[in-house]
Parts: sequence; C-alpha cells; structure tokens
Amino acid sequence: MENDELLSNIDETIREFYSEKELIPHLTDSILYSVNAGGKRIRPLFMLQTLRAFGIELTEEHYKVAASVELIHTSSLIHDDLPAMDNDDYRRGRLTNHKVYGDAQAILAGDALLLDPYNLLVSSELSAEILVKLVRELSYASGSYGMVAGQVLDMDSEQKEISLDELKQIHALKTGRMLTFPFVAAAIVAQADEKIVEKLRTLGEHIGLAFQIRDDIKDVTADFAEIGKTPGKDIEEDKATYVKFLGLEGAKEALKNELYSARQIIKKLSDENDFWPSSVLELIDMLDIDDK
Amino acid sequence: MENDELLSNIDETIREFYSEKELIPHLTDSILYSVNAGGKRIRPLFMLQTLRAFGIELTEEHYKVAASVELIHTSSLIHDDLPAMDNDDYRRGRLTNHKVYGDAQAILAGDALLLDPYNLLVSSELSAEILVKLVRELSYASGSYGMVAGQVLDMDSEQKEISLDELKQIHALKTGRMLTFPFVAAAIVAQADEKIVEKLRTLGEHIGLAFQIRDDIKDVTADFAEIGKTPGKDIEEDKATYVKFLGLEGAKEALKNELYSARQIIKKLSDENDFWPSSVLELIDMLDIDDK
Repeated sequence: MENDELLSNIDETIREFYSEKELIPHLTDSILYSVNAGGKRIRPLFMLQTLRAFGIELTEEHYKVAASVELIHTSSLIHDDLPAMDNDDYRRGRLTNHKVYGDAQAILAGDALLLDPYNLLVSSELSAEILVKLVRELSYASGSYGMVAGQVLDMDSEQKEISLDELKQIHALKTGRMLTFPFVAAAIVAQADEKIVEKLRTLGEHIGLAFQIRDDIKDVTADFAEIGKTPGKDIEEDKATYVKFLGLEGAKEALKNELYSARQIIKKLSDENDFWPSSVLELIDMLDIDDK
Repeated sequence: MENDELLSNIDETIREFYSEKELIPHLTDSILYSVNAGGKRIRPLFMLQTLRAFGIELTEEHYKVAASVELIHTSSLIHDDLPAMDNDDYRRGRLTNHKVYGDAQAILAGDALLLDPYNLLVSSELSAEILVKLVRELSYASGSYGMVAGQVLDMDSEQKEISLDELKQIHALKTGRMLTFPFVAAAIVAQADEKIVEKLRTLGEHIGLAFQIRDDIKDVTADFAEIGKTPGKDIEEDKATYVKFLGLEGAKEALKNELYSARQIIKKLSDENDFWPSSVLELIDMLDIDDK
C-alpha cells in the first residue's frame, strides 16, 4: 500500500470528522486551513505503516487513530506561530493561521485541535481496552509530559545557555514524544506484548531525535522552497541546535547514528517476530540527508 | 458528604496528578496558579453529588473524572483572558495567568490543561467501556462541538447584532455543554440506561442556561468583591446578555424558569428511580438569585 493512498485516506477521515452539520463553519474553515496546509503527515504514516508491518489490514478504525495525532500536531504549529510565541507569518510557504483568521480565532482553532482528536480517536471501533491505552499515550505524548513541556523548555532555553543534554531533553519532549506515539500506538493496536511495545517506544525515540537533527541541518542547507520557511533563521537567532553544538558534519553524523539505531531495532524485531517492516524502512530512509 | 470534603478531595486529586517528578516545575506552577485561583469547582461538584444521588459511594476513580472537566474549564479561562481574546488583567480578584507568567507561557499552560485531563481521566480504574464514553462526552463538550465553538460564536457576536435565540445557542455551546457533562458523566458512571442519560443531559442544559443568565444578572447587580472582576463590563461594552434582551426583571424570571425545569426533571427522576437528589438540589439552590 503506497503512502499516497494512506495519505488520501487520512485526509478523508479528517474531512469526514469535520463535515458534521452541527459544526460552526467559521471555526471549521480555520481548522482545515491549517490541517490542509501541506503537512507531510509523517506521524500518521509511521503509525499506519507500522501497523502494516505487524500484518494488520488497515481499516477506517485505524485511520481515526492516525489522524488524531496529526490534529494535535497541527494545533502546536498554529499556537507556535502566534505573535506571543514565535511570531511567524509564513509556514510551508503559506500565511500562518493567525495572519489569515486573526490571533483570537487562531488560539481557538488550536484549542479545538487539542480537544477534538480525543473524540475522533474514541469514535474508532477498536476495543475499549485498546482505546483507553491510546488515549493515555496520546495525552502523555502531547501535554505536560510531552510536547507542551518541551515547548516550555524550548522557550526558556532562548533566555540562557544550555548544554547538548538539555537540548536533547527539549527535543525528546517537544517533538520526540509525538513522533514516538505512532510506533507505540501501532504496537498497542496490534496487541503486541509489553516488551515489544517498549522496543517500539525506543524506536520512536530514535526517530524523533533523527527528525529534529535533520530539521536543524535543513535550516542551514536548504532553501525557502524546500522547507517552506526562511532558512538560516536558527543561526540568525543564535538558537541552540545540533548544528550549533556539533557543527554541520557532526550533526550529519549524529543523524546517521540515530537512523542506524532505529534500523537495528527494526532488524531485530523482524528477525524475532512476525514483523514485515519494508514500508517503515522506506519512511525512515526519507529522513536520510542526501549527501551528494 | 459535605461539598467542602468533596472540594478538598478534588484538589488533592489535581495536586497528586501534577506532582510527578518528571514534570517541568515552571509549567506546573503556572498551571496550578490558575487551577487554584479560587474557582468554585461547580462542574466537579455537580458530577460528584449526582453520582451520590445515584447511590454511588465516591472513590478516587470518580474524583479523577470530576477533576478532568475542571482542568479543561480552567484552560478556557486562561485563554479567554489573553490580550488577543478578552484582554483581562484580573480574574476572581487576582492577576490573570498571562499577567504573571507572560502570554506565551499562558498559552502553553492552557494547552496543557486541554490535553492532560484525558490522561487523568483514563487513569481512573473505571471500566474501559465507561472511560471511552466519558472521553467522547468530554471532547464533545469542550471542542468544536461545544465550548470552543461557543467561544468562536461569542467572539463573532461582538461584531454584529444577534437575536435572543442566537444568544441562547452561544451559551448552550460556550458554557452549557461543559455544565452538562457532569450530569451525563454521572449517569454514564452509574451505568444508567440511555433514557436516564438523556434526561440528565436535558437537566444539565437547564443548569447551563441558568448559570449563564445568573452570570449576566450578577454583572449588573454585584460588586467587585462578590464576582472578583469589574462589574458592569458587559453593559459598558454593549455585550449581548440576557439582561440586555429581557431587562433585569425578565432575566430573573428566565433564571427562575430554568431552575424550575431543572427541579422538575429531578423530581420525576427521584419519583421513578433510585435517585436521592438532596445534595444536587442544594447545589441548584445556590444558583438562585437572592431577591431580598
């Protein structure tokens, strides 16, 4: 099953969820503006391809879970871009939500995108036991134990010098937990035993770190068209990044190491279990930096 | 069981949830600043007293559910007060969250308070089937189908003339759904049959409306000490309120009608079922306006 087909099913799930007559069009429009702003949907894709690696045939019930993590991720982008936060006018080459709908509406669209996903998730007809575990993991990944905590630490770090370990902690929370959720969620849905769930958690942590290191590298090597925002912004603002700590080559090396660790876990999983990870590996390959 | 005892147990549940070592103190402090800002915890109290009316002995598992709705409510207050929204410096006589912690941190504290409650809720050891229903109802009450939608409509209404019916719709969503949740949640936990769940939903809708009408009346009749904010602000800003539409006496009459309808539903419930509502009725009595 190609990623394109998965992407179109994820989009259909979100569109359907937000097409109820009862909803306020004004709010839904601003929500969908950002949901459909060209995100790569890497979190849902990782979850769905990992489910397939477990030999599970995908249905609507899985797409609902996968879409829920994308909605929370989208909220974090809307709120991050606000004038009170990073004050960005553009994201992925388009005006940010608050530049189109105003600050108040952007705050509320972001709020809805933190609350609605739980409704979408439990509308899935997976077993109640599985859904409860997924709700717990999603809240853990996103709230005071995850993404939001990382954002607070990241904000604090702008006022002071931090160490590489502190940078790692920030990213483990800010982006790591939400990138770990898809792997853990797939293992929970597959009813894998606890040991395998924890292996997938570690896998997700490597992917999360790789993702962030790659982002830092792209900030210095890519152009506006590729990353959809002004490159070099991190350096200009003297932000703590992997490139700042390790240099460009060091950061590339660190990225390689994380991806190697991720692939090793997958290799072991597929050697010892019914786990067919070719599509997951393809997604991971996309995180490689082309060194030509 | 007195409300004071329930309140202290609710507070203990929240304190415990936010006392994990893993958490970021800086974020937790700003969260607890608003959670402990003297709210009356009317939503958790309604839920817990309704559970007692069903003859259920309260345990920690119920407090976790009751606290979750209070956390989401608190988030809405933090975000409402932001400069981009209502721009309030004081709430309940204390500085608002962003005046103490800054706008960015207040946005993030509010975000955490939308996500964490789902973790708290599913940490309850009620059955998975019950928890899934509660998650669905809580998300429905708070997100694009409830509170946030009402806030968007409320914001829109400031730019135009609206009708009394439109005002009712705004409040049914903005405050009504979150005040309905406690009654519905209690019925779900009590495993009451679907008909009774729906009766409690209607009861909650009357309470929600009563609550808002009372708030509008208080804005013109109370002083700063009683409501903890500048009175007369609605009139000054020419906001659509029940008092504006119906006059002060008309609004008092409307409040009485809603409370009467609520009490009628309770009477019928207790006539026909094992339902002992004296403590719920006492809470409802507190919504009466003293007409001396």
